[in-house]
Amino acid sequence: MYSLNVEFFGYFAAILTTAAFLPQLIKTLKTKKADDVSLLTLIMFMSGVGSWIIYGYAISSSPILIANIITLLLNFFILISKIYYARKY
Amino acid sequence: MYSLNVEFFGYFAAILTTAAFLPQLIKTLKTKKADDVSLLTLIMFMSGVGSWIIYGYAISSSPILIANIITLLLNFFILISKIYYARKY
Repeated sequence: MYSLNVEFFGYFAAILTTAAFLPQLIKTLKTKKADDVSLLTLIMFMSGVGSWIIYGYAISSSPILIANIITLLLNFFILISKIYYARKY
Repeated sequence: MYSLNVEFFGYFAAILTTAAFLPQLIKTLKTKKADDVSLLTLIMFMSGVGSWIIYGYAISSSPILIANIITLLLNFFILISKIYYARKY
């Protein structure tokens, strides 16, 4: 029962910190700009998320592993959108 | 030696995904706006980070625990700055 609760918090955290980047991606695509979003934050965050993937794999934590792979993908799309719109407009 | 490498990736990931939010906070304070930063992303992300703190404590992972406490604080300051500048300007 205890480990079940732990897993719950892991997956709840994983879903939230992953899904959190969807509104940012949607907002960027809608407004066609992300000038206020820090480029350095995106680059550092994606590097860190990549390291969490290695760490999650090493300690065999599925929530950390799966969440960070999707988080990396979403932030990659935000980064590409930011650069694309900055060049276009 | 193996566990030492695992810890290294954990702390490297922790430092990067935590420090990543400093450039965003500095940028927001300098430009005095964060209109392009999604409010929903900040709220969902902070809720998720709060859950990671509980998870990190439960599985006794120091990198997860420490990193997420600082990440929560930095994002809290970004959220406050965003709301403050949106009202003021």
